[in-house]
Amino acid sequence: MSTDSRPVRVGILGMGTVGQGTVRVLLRNAEEITRRVGRDLRVVHAAVRSPQRLQGLDFPGRVSVDPWAVVRDSEVDVLVEVMGGTGLARELILAAIDSGKHVVTANKALLAEHGNEIFAAAQRRGVMVAFEAAVAGAIPIIKAIREGLAGNRIHWLAGIINGTSNYILTQMFREGWSFAEALAKAQELGYAEADPALDVDGGDAAHKITLMASIAFGIPVDFAHCHVEGIRSLQGEDVHYAAELGYRIKLLGIARRRDDGVELRVHPTLIPQDHLLAHVEGPFNAVLADSDAAGQSLYYGRGAGGDPTASAVVADLVDVARTMTADPSNRVPHLAFQADALSPLPLLPMAEVESAYYLRIQAENRAGVLAQLATILAEYQISIEALVQRERPGAASVPIVLLLHRCREGDLEQAIARIEALPVVTAAVLRLRVESLDEG
Amino acid sequence: MSTDSRPVRVGILGMGTVGQGTVRVLLRNAEEITRRVGRDLRVVHAAVRSPQRLQGLDFPGRVSVDPWAVVRDSEVDVLVEVMGGTGLARELILAAIDSGKHVVTANKALLAEHGNEIFAAAQRRGVMVAFEAAVAGAIPIIKAIREGLAGNRIHWLAGIINGTSNYILTQMFREGWSFAEALAKAQELGYAEADPALDVDGGDAAHKITLMASIAFGIPVDFAHCHVEGIRSLQGEDVHYAAELGYRIKLLGIARRRDDGVELRVHPTLIPQDHLLAHVEGPFNAVLADSDAAGQSLYYGRGAGGDPTASAVVADLVDVARTMTADPSNRVPHLAFQADALSPLPLLPMAEVESAYYLRIQAENRAGVLAQLATILAEYQISIEALVQRERPGAASVPIVLLLHRCREGDLEQAIARIEALPVVTAAVLRLRVESLDEG
Repeated sequence: MSTDSRPVRVGILGMGTVGQGTVRVLLRNAEEITRRVGRDLRVVHAAVRSPQRLQGLDFPGRVSVDPWAVVRDSEVDVLVEVMGGTGLARELILAAIDSGKHVVTANKALLAEHGNEIFAAAQRRGVMVAFEAAVAGAIPIIKAIREGLAGNRIHWLAGIINGTSNYILTQMFREGWSFAEALAKAQELGYAEADPALDVDGGDAAHKITLMASIAFGIPVDFAHCHVEGIRSLQGEDVHYAAELGYRIKLLGIARRRDDGVELRVHPTLIPQDHLLAHVEGPFNAVLADSDAAGQSLYYGRGAGGDPTASAVVADLVDVARTMTADPSNRVPHLAFQADALSPLPLLPMAEVESAYYLRIQAENRAGVLAQLATILAEYQISIEALVQRERPGAASVPIVLLLHRCREGDLEQAIARIEALPVVTAAVLRLRVESLDEG
Repeated sequence: MSTDSRPVRVGILGMGTVGQGTVRVLLRNAEEITRRVGRDLRVVHAAVRSPQRLQGLDFPGRVSVDPWAVVRDSEVDVLVEVMGGTGLARELILAAIDSGKHVVTANKALLAEHGNEIFAAAQRRGVMVAFEAAVAGAIPIIKAIREGLAGNRIHWLAGIINGTSNYILTQMFREGWSFAEALAKAQELGYAEADPALDVDGGDAAHKITLMASIAFGIPVDFAHCHVEGIRSLQGEDVHYAAELGYRIKLLGIARRRDDGVELRVHPTLIPQDHLLAHVEGPFNAVLADSDAAGQSLYYGRGAGGDPTASAVVADLVDVARTMTADPSNRVPHLAFQADALSPLPLLPMAEVESAYYLRIQAENRAGVLAQLATILAEYQISIEALVQRERPGAASVPIVLLLHRCREGDLEQAIARIEALPVVTAAVLRLRVESLDEG
């Protein structure tokens, strides 16, 4: 079909859900993939810790227990790394790059923490490191940002990029469950790991938004400065107050470019309930991009699982197969921008972030409290957009819920410290961020 | 930056909304685009019927009234065709291809009607014809289907791909307006042309779904066999009955692969009101793809306008700039599949289509009518899922609304002919298709 019709020979590290999914998809759709690429994608070697895992899979290649055997296999053109971890995986990938192999990886933690080192090594060696599968599962979001929006100045990205958290928040909203109840159900259904920390504490989403920020803005990967808050401390009552105010609470990864730097943060966020993003439910992911020419665009799909992640791995393999014979300088750069043209735009500390806010303040049930709160906020030029206060006759203390207009987070933190010091305020103030997601 | 850092020289045919948007975006984001591509994209020559159109645009290149001057300009590497039409535009594009120029076009009508000829000429000459801007404006849907889902067997696509119609349907639903009222408002706001036929009669959506079907399934472009129905005859009462049954009415382009052929059709369609696609409102577009590995994925954004369409044109220019020095056999094929590996899968006639249906039957207001309808439907093995019938005491005739389970359209047409022949039925039966949009 094409002038170079030799098969592309693939080695795989790790035969868990994603590794097996990749082999399954490559076998099942072999004919269709070859019709697209003009050559076969053939898995010739896999490393698997427990070879009995391959039972039932009609695996066509060599099997090794030692991952180095795959990395050192001169028959392997492209290495697929789906074993996870940031120690051995890093060494294996660097060695593969060093020997001139292209790499396809789903390892968001590794790239968020060691991406600059890995991309620099690949750049020097003239090989590709493709990572569509590392962000938002089946959604071709890396391609959309890096290529589809290549003509745009991207203003910001906001993504629901952790399916476990989104499932939990969906159930807290729909069923009125507590966080603990929803987490238990997610674990029962296999949407959450036995140790759910990486998902519900925001680390996984932070890995992903860190990578997306780099390709959107052309900045080095800087996970250490990503602000991360999870959903563990969310209360059912906040989900309900938010609904009453016209909002849904979602765990968002947000990356925003400003003239003076980049905001990079993961936290539970109130978003308008009539926005498309508020309708992304359960284990699904979605990323909203706001850019100068395209305006708002949104990308939605399955964020995890064997076959959906394999869909992204295979798309990367197809891209690699198409460009492996091309001059490296003509390929799409790893971080969307030429390696020598990355921007030094700094990541901003949270005190510099600008957002609207939701506050829940527990205060004594008596006259004059609201006036005290409003006075403090006004001193910091923070204005109140909406208020929910329920009559609870006889109760010693009542919750006061405030929606605040956009302000500088550092100013708000000072105001909150003053509010918490008021004698009438009986507990720590709960503070959530609010994003209108308006275009521009 | 890269080894070949000469500028890519662009010629443009047509300086209407999209042509001007393209120049504006290339100028405004020049620095950022060059940081991405490693070389400049420079507009060197534009053809414009009325040169006064360029007033206010800081246009950097030559200007000609004669489009052939741009096509014959040996300084032009890539031709952007945004003049529209299927006569002269075809000749200009074929001549540009013949002289070895790459082509970027937003011309869906031209490609839907003459795509096979144009792609074959480009294939022979080893040049690219890129058309992201021809489908769904700013949404990188061609790239998503052709590259992002390259590992998948795509089952079906369903798209809201005409913003004018979607705006009209949104307003009919929200405001209770008639089609004529909503159209008038769309024209006032500039969402609809003075002659709205191409939009509201479905032709524009048909051009787009025809192109998407080709790249999803690897079949030649076959606009002549696309079934097209618009929204002109929709009644407000159907919008409201649909809502009562839990559905929204949207103009969908649908392409579905079956073992025996491909369904390719555009028509108003009832879709479940809790599906994400039902929340795509106003002038926005969205395409839902269902495929074997990724499952369902959705792509949403602005479907028209100068800057959004320019976003897609520039993305194509970037792709062309990156691959113009590559071996043509390694590029992404025009129709996603290698030119010699297209499938002969036929487009199916509407009688063979399978769908669920909504019927509105106007019948005399008396006992026994429903039994007669049910008897006829049962003879064709068509079963009723839901029914709406309002008491209207004293009315001579009443509407009966039926939701029918999936059946073969040919069978339904026979049943409808029998129903219309019943003496108790007082008007032609209104028939709409219903899609559950379920995964798989």
